[in-house]
Amino acid sequence: MTDGVPIAALGDLPARVTLVEVGPRDGLQNETAMVSPADRAALIDALAAAGLPAVEAGAFVSPDRVPQMAGTAEVLSRVGRHASLRLPVLVPNGRGLDDALAAGAREVAVFGAASETFSRRNINCSIAESLDRFADVARRARAAGVAVRGYVSCVLGCPYEGPVDAKAVRDVAAALLDLGCFEVSLGDTIGIGSAGGMAGLLDAVTATIPVNRLAVHCHDTYGQALANILVALSAGVSVIDCAIAGLGGCPYAPGASGNVATEDVVHMLDGLGIATGVDADRLLDASRLAVALVGHPPLGRVARARLAGADG
Amino acid sequence: MTDGVPIAALGDLPARVTLVEVGPRDGLQNETAMVSPADRAALIDALAAAGLPAVEAGAFVSPDRVPQMAGTAEVLSRVGRHASLRLPVLVPNGRGLDDALAAGAREVAVFGAASETFSRRNINCSIAESLDRFADVARRARAAGVAVRGYVSCVLGCPYEGPVDAKAVRDVAAALLDLGCFEVSLGDTIGIGSAGGMAGLLDAVTATIPVNRLAVHCHDTYGQALANILVALSAGVSVIDCAIAGLGGCPYAPGASGNVATEDVVHMLDGLGIATGVDADRLLDASRLAVALVGHPPLGRVARARLAGADG
Repeated sequence: MTDGVPIAALGDLPARVTLVEVGPRDGLQNETAMVSPADRAALIDALAAAGLPAVEAGAFVSPDRVPQMAGTAEVLSRVGRHASLRLPVLVPNGRGLDDALAAGAREVAVFGAASETFSRRNINCSIAESLDRFADVARRARAAGVAVRGYVSCVLGCPYEGPVDAKAVRDVAAALLDLGCFEVSLGDTIGIGSAGGMAGLLDAVTATIPVNRLAVHCHDTYGQALANILVALSAGVSVIDCAIAGLGGCPYAPGASGNVATEDVVHMLDGLGIATGVDADRLLDASRLAVALVGHPPLGRVARARLAGADG
Repeated sequence: MTDGVPIAALGDLPARVTLVEVGPRDGLQNETAMVSPADRAALIDALAAAGLPAVEAGAFVSPDRVPQMAGTAEVLSRVGRHASLRLPVLVPNGRGLDDALAAGAREVAVFGAASETFSRRNINCSIAESLDRFADVARRARAAGVAVRGYVSCVLGCPYEGPVDAKAVRDVAAALLDLGCFEVSLGDTIGIGSAGGMAGLLDAVTATIPVNRLAVHCHDTYGQALANILVALSAGVSVIDCAIAGLGGCPYAPGASGNVATEDVVHMLDGLGIATGVDADRLLDASRLAVALVGHPPLGRVARARLAGADG
């Protein structure tokens, strides 16, 4: 309740953070409910209305493999676009990029891994092969004036390999930046990392990569996401991925639950006096819609408390 | 997964933390399930077996008002005691202390508030009246060689009054220490505080109170507990209250959910390389028992993931 107090013990925190809302993609892609393109567009509109500056709008992937993301072109055609709203879409390969460009996407994301086994199981190729593929995607995207964001998954642990070497994360992140990504989001895909792991990872990665090229993407499987994000903030990271209502998870990661909830992140950042441009009350309108679309209660705590409580 | 890495950005964290398990009291007291004294003793035994050094064993309060705590004397008589295991019990007044002493308690806890309205609604007296009452309890307890722990509730917000002045928290904490408490636990009873609020509170409180006389007691209503505990650690606090499986809440605080889960705290502390003496795997045995006793899934994330997952 004491907002904006300087926190000597945490060092200099960023004055402003960019939130990248991934609920309509990473969230919904891992929900069992099939949400129509019209409803996905409505959710994106609600998120943008709450002030989120970037909303991952979908993925141009095989509808046989990921039926939840079918109709992403229709989502892009329906969503209310304005110049300051970023709407990245995931593209796994050149064909996905073709579809994204045809749909008018202005930002795409590629998805690499720091674990060989996860790479093979998730995108069916080695890390090196995935980087070759992404290099071609990035070259063509940038030639079309389209920005490319990179993900590295399993940065704090792999469901198949266990511990992951921070140097492997750094190498993949560096390769993604070298091939033209403007930013790389470090994903704790299975949410097993804790504050110590995040601190060690960022120590290693920022030894060679500027912190302003990094985002963090935390899942809340073990409840550690906000603490890990606080560590990332204290290390200078100022881009945070999050998902409305804590949607999603990862079907390829045993035991994984959803992304860290946007509402929970906003509650923390508001309390730290860190600007996000997001209105917590309007965000709750998006929470209500997300919950209605997936048909289960929110995984995030703020939405659960506020939608159940007197101020919901 | 990278354990024990020094975290420059977080400053010097404590090498060792004392966890005070409050599930069998603050947790169960706020559950609807009525758990028998024999089962509560079994839960305490499981928690002690996992390595927890202090387990709040019950409360000597009116069984009409708090039926969940009826039979606390029987709990104390059944639980396996050993010299290094602390078993504090809550006592609201002199009569409660009489009962605690008769049951052989060696540590009692008194429960004050930083909000006048909460004090009146929770313990039916003003803050000043509660301190007078506790002074008598503490004097008699200490004369009997019994240690006294103090709580201050609503330190980061009151369900009735909203924001709470950090100086009011400091004044009540100082009064509790002056009347003989060996330690004061600062409780975010409704779990609304965020990292900024915790930092500001601890800045204010530690201006006059040594940090080694303080504990923090976070509820996870808004998902902020671990981040807030991380702030407390970075401010030098080394005593953390927590509850197995995230049991409990507060019936007098609208919208409040359970205490921060012991399993989630241990996951974070293990990852930070901070010693607790608790074995995370044996702790899961206590989680299973707690869940069986209350009849609902764990609120904590680690227990939810691990009891559902392959390693549960």
